[in-house]
Amino acid sequence: MSSHHIVRDDQEPALIIANGAACSKELLGQLLEWSPLVVVLDSAIERVMELGIKVDVLLGDFDRGFDPEYYRDMQYPLEIVHTPDQDKTDLEKALDYLIERKFPAANVIWATGRRADHTITNITNIVRYRDLIKIVVLDDHSKIFLLQQKFEKWYPAGTPLSLIPIGKVKGISSKNLKYQLDNDELTIGYRTGSSNEALNDGIVMIEHQEGDLLMMECYD
Amino acid sequence: MSSHHIVRDDQEPALIIANGAACSKELLGQLLEWSPLVVVLDSAIERVMELGIKVDVLLGDFDRGFDPEYYRDMQYPLEIVHTPDQDKTDLEKALDYLIERKFPAANVIWATGRRADHTITNITNIVRYRDLIKIVVLDDHSKIFLLQQKFEKWYPAGTPLSLIPIGKVKGISSKNLKYQLDNDELTIGYRTGSSNEALNDGIVMIEHQEGDLLMMECYD
Repeated sequence: MSSHHIVRDDQEPALIIANGAACSKELLGQLLEWSPLVVVLDSAIERVMELGIKVDVLLGDFDRGFDPEYYRDMQYPLEIVHTPDQDKTDLEKALDYLIERKFPAANVIWATGRRADHTITNITNIVRYRDLIKIVVLDDHSKIFLLQQKFEKWYPAGTPLSLIPIGKVKGISSKNLKYQLDNDELTIGYRTGSSNEALNDGIVMIEHQEGDLLMMECYD
Repeated sequence: MSSHHIVRDDQEPALIIANGAACSKELLGQLLEWSPLVVVLDSAIERVMELGIKVDVLLGDFDRGFDPEYYRDMQYPLEIVHTPDQDKTDLEKALDYLIERKFPAANVIWATGRRADHTITNITNIVRYRDLIKIVVLDDHSKIFLLQQKFEKWYPAGTPLSLIPIGKVKGISSKNLKYQLDNDELTIGYRTGSSNEALNDGIVMIEHQEGDLLMMECYD
């Protein structure tokens, strides 16, 4: 069992475990260590149980004959949240749940891999939560988050950094990137800023005027 | 060794093996069987060699000390295409190569999984090839292709079908989908048509007026 139930500051991100490909145990362990709350989506609980993790919330539409009550005793206390709304994905419902509980931030794992439709939907849908909750999607090769209009962070030289526009993004300028942007426009499907990198050790700055721009820190 | 060198009709799709996660041997075998040409991207050749496949073209920028000549004798005859252009991904360069050789279609595997930036770029960039070459991106859970303005195909009832707009897509109407569209608009990040399905055994029809709409046939 993880020890994540030590009383923690609720300013730390909650952890959402979605239903895509599992990540490494190392990444899972790092995120659990500081997580004040663990939310598991729907039938992912089957795979999560095998890992011996204490889960706080099980959330989903529980269709296809899945019985969440089976897990209640094994994970006591476990909050079961039934969300039958077919207009939202389970990940969106989990984010809505955390916003209602006033969590300021969420880390999301197992949201990529396996089905491409789920992967692309999970990654791109985070843009609609811009002012509601801070989201980071993580897998073994990627760390993904939405950029505020001005972003600054220290990176070592050569760090791979990809700028992925969700739709069209205008007025993008950068400092300390290998392929510099100067009031440029990026459009998904046509011109993206994938496979850029930090030029020198130091602060990378990225500004944009309009649109939704994702940062992906990715490694092979 | 695969027997794909039997003389074939060049109307069959060429096969591009990109540098993401490997697919099952079953999927690879099915695609190789009819493929008149196999193109491998950059250092993916290392993993492809282990599978005992005959490769026709090795294409990439060959950076980071990678020596393509090492593979020439092992794969004779092997065409090595050096494409140093940093403004395009290796997958785009491979598609450009096939267009120049007048291939009408390409199947793309190993284009998803691992790095999320490569996955999303590889999937979404196929829209720019609309009138140039017919592309299908496949992995063990997904079959992805761009829809023409009117699309019709027979599916069994319950087949999962996801409509993913690359940008904004307007004037979308459907027949025989569970969640019907009627002159609707979809926008990536805000409203997608993920997780729809065929309603009854029969022809599913999807029309759209404007924009780039991907179909994803995905399975768990």
